[in-house]
Amino acid sequence: MSTEDTHRTITADGVHHAAHRLAGNAIETPLIENEFLNDIAGGRVLVKAEVLQHCGSFKFRGAYNLVSKIPAQERQRGVLAWSSGNHAQGIARAARHFDTPATIIMPADTPDIKTEKVRAFGADIIPYDRYSEDREEIAKPIQKERNMILAPSYDHPDIIEGQGTLALETVAQARNQNAEIDAFIICCGGGGLTSGCATILEEISPKTEVWIAEPEGFDETWASIKSGKRQRADITQRTICDAIATPTPGRLTFPIMQRLVKGGVCLTEGDVAKAMLFALKYLKLIVEPGGAVALAAILSGKYEAQGKVTAITLSGGNVDPTLFASLISRAQG
Amino acid sequence: MSTEDTHRTITADGVHHAAHRLAGNAIETPLIENEFLNDIAGGRVLVKAEVLQHCGSFKFRGAYNLVSKIPAQERQRGVLAWSSGNHAQGIARAARHFDTPATIIMPADTPDIKTEKVRAFGADIIPYDRYSEDREEIAKPIQKERNMILAPSYDHPDIIEGQGTLALETVAQARNQNAEIDAFIICCGGGGLTSGCATILEEISPKTEVWIAEPEGFDETWASIKSGKRQRADITQRTICDAIATPTPGRLTFPIMQRLVKGGVCLTEGDVAKAMLFALKYLKLIVEPGGAVALAAILSGKYEAQGKVTAITLSGGNVDPTLFASLISRAQG
Repeated sequence: MSTEDTHRTITADGVHHAAHRLAGNAIETPLIENEFLNDIAGGRVLVKAEVLQHCGSFKFRGAYNLVSKIPAQERQRGVLAWSSGNHAQGIARAARHFDTPATIIMPADTPDIKTEKVRAFGADIIPYDRYSEDREEIAKPIQKERNMILAPSYDHPDIIEGQGTLALETVAQARNQNAEIDAFIICCGGGGLTSGCATILEEISPKTEVWIAEPEGFDETWASIKSGKRQRADITQRTICDAIATPTPGRLTFPIMQRLVKGGVCLTEGDVAKAMLFALKYLKLIVEPGGAVALAAILSGKYEAQGKVTAITLSGGNVDPTLFASLISRAQG
Repeated sequence: MSTEDTHRTITADGVHHAAHRLAGNAIETPLIENEFLNDIAGGRVLVKAEVLQHCGSFKFRGAYNLVSKIPAQERQRGVLAWSSGNHAQGIARAARHFDTPATIIMPADTPDIKTEKVRAFGADIIPYDRYSEDREEIAKPIQKERNMILAPSYDHPDIIEGQGTLALETVAQARNQNAEIDAFIICCGGGGLTSGCATILEEISPKTEVWIAEPEGFDETWASIKSGKRQRADITQRTICDAIATPTPGRLTFPIMQRLVKGGVCLTEGDVAKAMLFALKYLKLIVEPGGAVALAAILSGKYEAQGKVTAITLSGGNVDPTLFASLISRAQG
């Protein structure tokens, strides 16, 4: 199946195949259990510490899966992606691994910590203004002119199936820790991670409920699921959760989420900052705002974890150190 | 061998036995490799992420080993420890596990993050002024009056052998990653971790050089090794590296270190803050100042890692969030 066939069905088998490709190339990130968190939740909370993945987020999984599927004779065409930062790093690192050129369209206000690493992996960056410009419109002529292979940040079968390996891995780790997961809370932007995880969970752990956590103002995915129609967030809003500030659920991810997502939780910036502080104090992990919303769902009590086994994603850790320090100070105040 | 026999020889076998006791009770913390760190070092750097251990530091290893060896009929006597914070948490958690009362003598200026957790595990705290009082002098009458079992923070065979499991685990993980460790840099306070690791490394990986990293002003261990005589640090000095601000190497740890430690590196507070910032940006781990000195040895270039495989400990992550935020800001400035 070519990586440019974006209309094929997304399957649990696809996730298993992605897991084989990723074996030895992605990190099997730890599934952490913390007694203080369990006490607060009144149940078991299993924390998938994906901040320890290559490039500091789950995005490497899908990116590697996509780039690895480009036939060797096509690699010199290069890959073109757009990304708020984490997908960019994943694509840049995967492309370097396969000696494929990479060009990434990134918001001009992307935290330096994300752009620095993209450059370090040898990719080119084209900046755009995410408050006024449409990144897909910028991508089209470039893609056409240079005949590059598109690597969307979520709306692509290879990306979605790659991200799904996170849930496949988590369920196996949980079973090694004598746990069957009642609910899996996923930090949700465009829905790549959510739809990939939901797809594999339906097969390997059908009793697990899939929940999404979204930041205030960008909770259009749960609104879309509830209304049965893709809603749009107002992308002119500022948010600290840059990694998941997507305008609307994906064309491919939405129908999967609509069928398989059981509930949604919406978190304020205060909830998120408190979760980042908790991760600092008790888990010793750096979590970026967009990667902390699932933990915030538990800590805020907005998701009721009492008596359950709940898995949560800490989906990324690429936060600007100055912002991190200021959020930690704020959360303590 | 009773846990109160503090004169027995410390052996590699003792470390193996400790590892059996700890199996399933301590966390096998990940050994992390980061490409940016490798690039800076010009070699392979294997990072033992012991901040992810129970209670956020390696101290749980020795504490659990000691408490687990108390015969069941003796447990009600309780354990008495003194600690700058990390050992306190380890003892408190291990004591709770075995339903043993615990009393801990802690500096009055211990970061809240450490005292809070000690209390949460149900231990009693006796505060003292570490600039004017001698904690051992405070402990003696309490121990005598209550007939408690002493759990020193480093100078005890069970503690030392427990800490040694960190190196046993690291060598096995490194070999799984096709690496033989040329040098192992250990954050060094009283020398419990260093002497335990050196003891087991001599058996399982005799070519591995043991190095210690110490903070400016509290680099008396390397000075002691060089001079052949236990030196004393001026404990009235302030340091951000509270976890390893010990006055002098241990009676038991010193001869082991003298025989087996190859070199020492002394780090400034600026070196330490930069290492903490690096860990935030690239490793996504919270490291406390005293736990960051080995990483600082690499990043500062004070230890020459070029062309080698170097293992380092990130030995603890219990840092006050306000101090953490201010050090991160300072390191960026």
